[in-house]
Amino acid sequence: MAKAPKTAIQPTRSEDYPEWYQQVIRAADLAESSPVRGCMVIKPWGYRLWENMQRALDDMFKATGHQNAYFPLFIPMSFLEKEAEHVEGFAKECAVVTHHRLEPNPDGGLRPAGALEEPLIVRPTSETIIGATYAKWVQSHRDLPILINQWANVVRWEMRTRMFLRTAEFLWQEGHTVHATSEEAIAETQQMINVYADFAQNWMAMPVIIGSKTPAERFPGAVETLSIEAMMQDRKALQAGTSHFLGQNFSKAQEIMFQAENGERQYAWTTSWGVSTRLVGALIMSHSDDDGLVLPPRLAPDQIVILPIYRDDSQRLEVLQHVESIKAELEAMSFLGQPLRIAIDDRDVRGGEKKWHHVKRGVPIRLEVGPKDIEKGSVFVGRRDQPKSFGMSRSEFIATAPALLDEMQKGLFNRALQLRNENTQEITTESDFRDFFAASDEKELHGGFAHCHFADEQSLEPLLKDLKVTIRCVPSEDNDEAGTCFSTGKAAQKRAIFAKAY
Amino acid sequence: MAKAPKTAIQPTRSEDYPEWYQQVIRAADLAESSPVRGCMVIKPWGYRLWENMQRALDDMFKATGHQNAYFPLFIPMSFLEKEAEHVEGFAKECAVVTHHRLEPNPDGGLRPAGALEEPLIVRPTSETIIGATYAKWVQSHRDLPILINQWANVVRWEMRTRMFLRTAEFLWQEGHTVHATSEEAIAETQQMINVYADFAQNWMAMPVIIGSKTPAERFPGAVETLSIEAMMQDRKALQAGTSHFLGQNFSKAQEIMFQAENGERQYAWTTSWGVSTRLVGALIMSHSDDDGLVLPPRLAPDQIVILPIYRDDSQRLEVLQHVESIKAELEAMSFLGQPLRIAIDDRDVRGGEKKWHHVKRGVPIRLEVGPKDIEKGSVFVGRRDQPKSFGMSRSEFIATAPALLDEMQKGLFNRALQLRNENTQEITTESDFRDFFAASDEKELHGGFAHCHFADEQSLEPLLKDLKVTIRCVPSEDNDEAGTCFSTGKAAQKRAIFAKAY
Repeated sequence: MAKAPKTAIQPTRSEDYPEWYQQVIRAADLAESSPVRGCMVIKPWGYRLWENMQRALDDMFKATGHQNAYFPLFIPMSFLEKEAEHVEGFAKECAVVTHHRLEPNPDGGLRPAGALEEPLIVRPTSETIIGATYAKWVQSHRDLPILINQWANVVRWEMRTRMFLRTAEFLWQEGHTVHATSEEAIAETQQMINVYADFAQNWMAMPVIIGSKTPAERFPGAVETLSIEAMMQDRKALQAGTSHFLGQNFSKAQEIMFQAENGERQYAWTTSWGVSTRLVGALIMSHSDDDGLVLPPRLAPDQIVILPIYRDDSQRLEVLQHVESIKAELEAMSFLGQPLRIAIDDRDVRGGEKKWHHVKRGVPIRLEVGPKDIEKGSVFVGRRDQPKSFGMSRSEFIATAPALLDEMQKGLFNRALQLRNENTQEITTESDFRDFFAASDEKELHGGFAHCHFADEQSLEPLLKDLKVTIRCVPSEDNDEAGTCFSTGKAAQKRAIFAKAY
Repeated sequence: MAKAPKTAIQPTRSEDYPEWYQQVIRAADLAESSPVRGCMVIKPWGYRLWENMQRALDDMFKATGHQNAYFPLFIPMSFLEKEAEHVEGFAKECAVVTHHRLEPNPDGGLRPAGALEEPLIVRPTSETIIGATYAKWVQSHRDLPILINQWANVVRWEMRTRMFLRTAEFLWQEGHTVHATSEEAIAETQQMINVYADFAQNWMAMPVIIGSKTPAERFPGAVETLSIEAMMQDRKALQAGTSHFLGQNFSKAQEIMFQAENGERQYAWTTSWGVSTRLVGALIMSHSDDDGLVLPPRLAPDQIVILPIYRDDSQRLEVLQHVESIKAELEAMSFLGQPLRIAIDDRDVRGGEKKWHHVKRGVPIRLEVGPKDIEKGSVFVGRRDQPKSFGMSRSEFIATAPALLDEMQKGLFNRALQLRNENTQEITTESDFRDFFAASDEKELHGGFAHCHFADEQSLEPLLKDLKVTIRCVPSEDNDEAGTCFSTGKAAQKRAIFAKAY
């Protein structure tokens, strides 16, 4: 039997997907674990990726009328108690500050001192602390709507963590809005899940399904949670963003009231919505391959890296001048409204190692340029999404670089969409449902999205628990056909997506 | 006696400077106190100002070769203990996380549960946690230098807080670099204090003095601390940024070692440097007046606000179309490389109230445009830095707007420089020194910067404590003249700046 070709990432996706994921992160220098349990260090390449995501999202939030602000890291314990479901959802996994200084321990070292009168919680999410502030800001219908977003770190004391996907501390944005009517708040909830879907599909090249969460999967305290769900390459679902219609639950808990035009005092209607550094994990698992990270050009920190090739110092100067001029010409061009991001890697490292450095980091296009290329007016092009490299005239490459990036961006999206389509099934019987998910094993590719009619989630609980499957969402579109529940046979109005999930 | 003209801010600066400061913040809608002791809420107008500061600084850091990354919020208590001076400096004011969940209290409510094996400190600064990571990254001289910055929140449990100037939680950036030689690390320390001075003077329009801190005022664990010091309008000093040469103190505490070219294992040399939301406080106190906030145009969230004036709906449409076209023409122009930032305020609020809204928020230029102006092709211009408003042709205003903003930017700098010059004195005797600072009262304008030769700081301690004066810095420039200490009469090589300070 022929030996399989060696890949840059060991193990491969098919050999051990979870371990492949960790190795891609390591090989691409995105992040690493830290000395603090469950917290990671986001390294420069990973942080640049996050900055690009932030910039794009921030522009979209501002274009839809939101402003940024900043609220305290700490939440007084009593605030969390005000909304019953909310505290139930977060009390089990929060970091609690109980002291405000350290003092020498008689046995050596230090110990906490200065006990606080009331413990403070490091925010796991900010509905309660922001709501307390909004209660002061909102007096009249003229103060509404309030449309605010916050970029922040939050802490949830997860027992099992995985880089980017589930960490004790993570970076995110949380939008918190207040409205005079239920209709307006629902429209906001819908608008923001659409913004997230737009970002996922057009920036991350990641197809997503918009839908509603079932009651058991809702955000603690929400009336309705909308989410975007994506399929990773191991066929598992990943929830990539959520937008919550909170009804009057939080405004009642926190007395966010306003005087309506008719003079009546009313409770306001609130929403919240967020995405996090989890998106980096989603990006990795959507596109990367057995040679490492693959980045969609719109988000890649460097879109094109130029690798100058020369034998000695006499060639060096000429080649460097030449690649600088290519860089300048490329930087004068734009891709979807942004100037191209070009790097030159002139480190003293051998060619093969240098090439693989950028392959593993997911740079969309590599350009090798040596003295012969200068002579011929050519460049040697490597695409991250295809195994073959090819020569091309310098001027043609420069003229068509944005089109090439666009083709790659769309290609990644289409490849991900095809994977999802191939692994999505309409399922109408419990036995087919069991078969669909049964082949599963933690280290294998398996399952996918099952579209099934269902009547109520409670009766499905034992089956789902047994198969480790969850209801991802009830899709918002193309979901008006009535049917019967695949498991109970009861009449059902809607289909849901069932999948194993991150 | 004539009644003093009414000002938008009560009290005025001369009546009660500290209270005036709070009222400017409130009137400009920059921030407010939160339900969490010592923590503030940064409101949208204040946050936009901070975002503009961040963007400018971030560009400067990247232009000097730094990359951003992100490190954990928490620091294990044992890490803090490793550097003796460092822990001494921060142990008395840090938030300590001791538990990782909440459980129902038998008497009702909740209580902390799940005690951590080792308490975690919410970072007051990140030398120790970042250093522990760098120790893993640095193996060889080829891994150096490491030039990384982090934008983050930090917590220092201050007992007396004041918005922006001293809050329990604040936002900042902290650069942390590692070098192979002492010379390189010293050059980095110097480079970054120069970047801060450049930002303070050219963006904030705030003159600063660069100098070294005396040993007692150094960052805990540093070999040398450089700072920029500015004079506020009440003549007090404000430390606006610091850059620390840490020598090998932290690399020894944390085993940051590398193999040099000669094969020897050596301790690395590190630096750290930071500025924070304190800069917003400095900006407020540098330029604002008794009518509220005054913003330097380069950092103003809106540089020009257009106030459309009309009597009824028939006029409304014409005026709005007209001001939209003015806005579009202005936005096509640039000021110091950035497109102009223009807002239209079409809220249904009476003219006087609307004008004062923007005066108090510090918008550099107000433009009133009504039907008569459209007819005449004119605009009515209000400058925030001058009391008088004036008419001007529309086309001339548009053509000269960047020049006008530039004039205002320079004007603010010059006004602040003049204030500093008028309140700076060379002082050579203790009696003059006492007189200079004696008139002081918390609510009055007083004192200033005293330039004095001094021999050693310890012998001055009782005098300085008595007068509530501190040594701000030993200026780096024009400080080579020998003399005698103003207090002890001992021979002295350098002058220092003495002042009351924030």
